[in-house]
Amino acid sequence: MNLKVIAFDADDTLWVNEPYYRQTEEQFYNLLGGYSTQHELERELLKTEIGNLTFYGYGIKGFVLSMIETALRISNNTISAEVVGAILDLGKQMLNQPIELLDGVEDVLGTLKSKYRLVVATKGDLLDQERKLKKSGISHYFHHIEIMSEKDDANYLKLIRHLDIAPQELLMVGNSLKSDIMPVLNIGGNAVHVPYHITWAHEQIEHSIESEKFKSVVEIRELLGFL
Amino acid sequence: MNLKVIAFDADDTLWVNEPYYRQTEEQFYNLLGGYSTQHELERELLKTEIGNLTFYGYGIKGFVLSMIETALRISNNTISAEVVGAILDLGKQMLNQPIELLDGVEDVLGTLKSKYRLVVATKGDLLDQERKLKKSGISHYFHHIEIMSEKDDANYLKLIRHLDIAPQELLMVGNSLKSDIMPVLNIGGNAVHVPYHITWAHEQIEHSIESEKFKSVVEIRELLGFL
Repeated sequence: MNLKVIAFDADDTLWVNEPYYRQTEEQFYNLLGGYSTQHELERELLKTEIGNLTFYGYGIKGFVLSMIETALRISNNTISAEVVGAILDLGKQMLNQPIELLDGVEDVLGTLKSKYRLVVATKGDLLDQERKLKKSGISHYFHHIEIMSEKDDANYLKLIRHLDIAPQELLMVGNSLKSDIMPVLNIGGNAVHVPYHITWAHEQIEHSIESEKFKSVVEIRELLGFL
Repeated sequence: MNLKVIAFDADDTLWVNEPYYRQTEEQFYNLLGGYSTQHELERELLKTEIGNLTFYGYGIKGFVLSMIETALRISNNTISAEVVGAILDLGKQMLNQPIELLDGVEDVLGTLKSKYRLVVATKGDLLDQERKLKKSGISHYFHHIEIMSEKDDANYLKLIRHLDIAPQELLMVGNSLKSDIMPVLNIGGNAVHVPYHITWAHEQIEHSIESEKFKSVVEIRELLGFL
């Protein structure tokens, strides 16, 4: 590998994210518990979120809007203003969440910084991701942050052009096979999968990947073994 | 001027935006008309939006969340679920709005494209701005789109570094003195103000600018006269 840039996914690769969504969903189910079973609430919320992706994209604000929409539908418009207010508060709590770095992240960044250009490549909301990067205390390891509206082949090609490198000079590191690995391999880049213990249903794929440009590791520190 | 890059603000510089917010606000005031005067609703909504900027940033999703929060507060939590649903619908309508290019924009872009690198530099929501750029039919004039969480000196400096140019090689064109002009002049860039007939209260400043790096024009076509 003749790498120039290592791009790191952010949520659940550098820091904890999905568990906060899960906690918030639990609180949402509790708020709506009088109207339906948890199983149906889960299904309806996911359906609303996926249906709204083209409108809202990824991130906390769209998630909050989808929770409110789901609450209105599930309750047949009988939900109280207080519950709507409680959902807004859940969103603000999430936006205020402290950042918890994943194990090994700082070691890896500190070691790789001098050898490669490091960037953050994430989807979600620019303001929110910038705030998280700032709070994380690791922003000085990165050249900059790239926000992508969707992590697909076309947007990774744009990223490559933007970074002014060839695809094979990119290594993407992330926890989502669907968003961080597959599209990068598709365009000729390298990818390392660092699985996280929970994954949003929309990000799950059943796939086994065979490629010399691909590696899967158990923890991010293993990167240092072959870079 | 030895320009390399011309950056255009998007909303109310390339296409109509603020009038859609105003229309939506009118509909919001109608929904809440039973609870307060329009004057108070205007003041309360603006207060909520500005209070939420650090949470939500700019863009339609944050605007919708702020409308809901304002409705809950103004109605003392007596607002019905239907009204909350109507506010969600207002947001989706805005996100579905067709793009109306401002007069002269295509002429200007078509003429300048061969001489300069043109970029869009906007705040707001990445997904929404990308969608608008795509719908606008003018994306082929631009090298790429830069989304900034806040248009301040620090972020314009980042932009300059990102574009790999000196400040004096940048010309920013936009309708907001606060966001498009002042910070660019502060960092040593050039700026042309193309006022739009309405401006969001939060963007308004009282300022007269004296700088050889600054021009104000009445319509965007005047750019061609001195570039």
